[in-house]
Amino acid sequence: MNLDRYRRLVRDTERRYINVNPIQRGGVLTPEAKKALIEFGDGYSVCDFCEGLLHEVEKPPIRQFHEDLAEFLGMDVVRVTAGARYSKEAVVGALCEEGDVMVVDALAHYTTFLAAERWGVGVREVPHTGHPEYRVRVEEYERVFDEVEDETGDPPALALLTHVDSEYGNLADAERFIKICRKRGVPCVLNCAYTMGRMDLSRLNPKPDFMIGSGHKGLAACAPCGVLAMRDEWADEVLRGSSIEGDVSGRSWPHKEVELLGCTVMGAPIVTMMASFPHVVERVKRWEDEVRKTRRLVEELERIEGVRQLGERPKRHDLVKLETPGFHRIAREHPRKGYFLYEELKERGIMGIQPGQTKAIKLSVYGLSEEQVDRVIEAFHGIAEEHGLEVS
Amino acid sequence: MNLDRYRRLVRDTERRYINVNPIQRGGVLTPEAKKALIEFGDGYSVCDFCEGLLHEVEKPPIRQFHEDLAEFLGMDVVRVTAGARYSKEAVVGALCEEGDVMVVDALAHYTTFLAAERWGVGVREVPHTGHPEYRVRVEEYERVFDEVEDETGDPPALALLTHVDSEYGNLADAERFIKICRKRGVPCVLNCAYTMGRMDLSRLNPKPDFMIGSGHKGLAACAPCGVLAMRDEWADEVLRGSSIEGDVSGRSWPHKEVELLGCTVMGAPIVTMMASFPHVVERVKRWEDEVRKTRRLVEELERIEGVRQLGERPKRHDLVKLETPGFHRIAREHPRKGYFLYEELKERGIMGIQPGQTKAIKLSVYGLSEEQVDRVIEAFHGIAEEHGLEVS
Repeated sequence: MNLDRYRRLVRDTERRYINVNPIQRGGVLTPEAKKALIEFGDGYSVCDFCEGLLHEVEKPPIRQFHEDLAEFLGMDVVRVTAGARYSKEAVVGALCEEGDVMVVDALAHYTTFLAAERWGVGVREVPHTGHPEYRVRVEEYERVFDEVEDETGDPPALALLTHVDSEYGNLADAERFIKICRKRGVPCVLNCAYTMGRMDLSRLNPKPDFMIGSGHKGLAACAPCGVLAMRDEWADEVLRGSSIEGDVSGRSWPHKEVELLGCTVMGAPIVTMMASFPHVVERVKRWEDEVRKTRRLVEELERIEGVRQLGERPKRHDLVKLETPGFHRIAREHPRKGYFLYEELKERGIMGIQPGQTKAIKLSVYGLSEEQVDRVIEAFHGIAEEHGLEVS
Repeated sequence: MNLDRYRRLVRDTERRYINVNPIQRGGVLTPEAKKALIEFGDGYSVCDFCEGLLHEVEKPPIRQFHEDLAEFLGMDVVRVTAGARYSKEAVVGALCEEGDVMVVDALAHYTTFLAAERWGVGVREVPHTGHPEYRVRVEEYERVFDEVEDETGDPPALALLTHVDSEYGNLADAERFIKICRKRGVPCVLNCAYTMGRMDLSRLNPKPDFMIGSGHKGLAACAPCGVLAMRDEWADEVLRGSSIEGDVSGRSWPHKEVELLGCTVMGAPIVTMMASFPHVVERVKRWEDEVRKTRRLVEELERIEGVRQLGERPKRHDLVKLETPGFHRIAREHPRKGYFLYEELKERGIMGIQPGQTKAIKLSVYGLSEEQVDRVIEAFHGIAEEHGLEVS
């Protein structure tokens, strides 16, 4: 065993490069979070003054944070989980039986499917409009509900909409989805992994039954952590306390929440989420600036021969997917094949494009300065021109 | 919303006090882990060079770490999870059906019960010897297996032994347990939350089917993270890839592991676990020193009138539980009631005793220097004498 490989774990990407990986932009720590991280790095660091339940710890102010986070989201009750996937899976575990059906959008994240699969729950997808916009046809949830009911005799046990998807960065019509679900009596989940911490979600009307978010994707926190927010009426069921009892020991744990397996995130991730929270509360107010920045990026990159933004137009989110047939043509002839784009971007100080990809690429400039966005644009323009692609 | 409360999250306990909380001693970060934490604090920090699966990331060396950790544990396959509880629950989810029965020791951690409860699995306990030693009667697993089989017609779906329990710090006879399970064909889990990272587990013979550990409890890592190690023969079942498919989109994710919901711990916790690993590999070799230190602590504290160590004698683990009837008597008369002990220890620079507890207390001096152990002993002796308890 060569242990030396663990002796200097360094990451220079954030220091030396502009990172445009869309999964990473919303999880960059704030300076405040970095400080808190040092304070609360040790394993059970937040448990110094615990009296039995993580979400009731007063020092650091975890109990209060749960209240403030709920208010920030416009929801009633919040729990912090080990990630959005665990939030989702807690709801599926609580509300679905084996053989039930869940209706989700055709852009839903893979963890939505895995949560269903784990519990033996079937999944039916609501289609999107296909190339090039890939808009989820939210109005068709009702049709799919009908089909499920016709086929199984029961309404779906759950419906989920991905507020902004991870492929095209489309913003789906959450309120319409929630209204359909409410009308049909189907509990609904809004997966806000790409919107919570970026956009103000507090004014959704009506409210979803469950709102799910990710700390490391959108709340400037360490991985792994997520958010599970819900309306009051679901708390008893989804956050039910344990009722099992040791047959010999007689022990029982009525205050430990079964679907969360008791306590969840005891250290660095929850503390960084808290330390970044004042910044996050502020930054959602500047969301329109982010959208403007993204639209400028798209406009500039579409000047490159063949580049076309996929997904809805104009953009309403920072996650951008581009068709890049010109780069793809170059890759075919290039000695480094598809890796040329990644490598030439890196030479120009830009990271975060999936290595090897040239047919279509994903990027985000969320949280970057206008100057940094300029550098990203210049890098792409420069590479295009160097390889003989026209930049109009 | 008063956001100022999140602006300066500080923890002075580790700087100003000797912390004897048993859940915290094994999760104190190494200096190397603290450095790595700064490098990899950002959300998806380890995903810069990911090609789709967390456990295959080469930079930082996560793939290699999985191999080295397996070797360190003497097991075949390892996954990092969001905590020991998630490891346990992954095994229950994979191997048990609703209505199955799982046999566990009567000292098993509450999360063992919650994992079973979540999946509708019944739990039967194997008794311990009761006061004062509370030794698990490992030989009785076989009797309980028989009873389950008589009652339900089937052998138990799973058996679990808590290697060292969180209440008395007893070291259970793992090999005997594994032999019984192997003989009876019952898959067995060894919960090593309190031994992995403290003791060398590589020589267990026979091997358990599953070995579970906690990063924040025993591997000098940030919360939340855990370890799920297994024998090769279980990997296909417990780490099975997804087979669900989107009915409209046609998407599928055969490489994503269902029971783990795909990727698990993308940042700070896994990186700190890796950075501390060389230290952990060394420290397990010094385990006998830790046991000696613990025995000295017990001997010295038992000099206080009425103090008696609970659990097996002599100690073979650092987690110590003491009956402290003298302190309990004082608490009854004291204006601060049971809190006096916690507060007076704090005045003497010692933290980590459960506030309000005086009937029995738990503590650990794992990883502390002999001088620090002296200070702990002196603090207890001083408080005892000040309140008129005899120190022999």
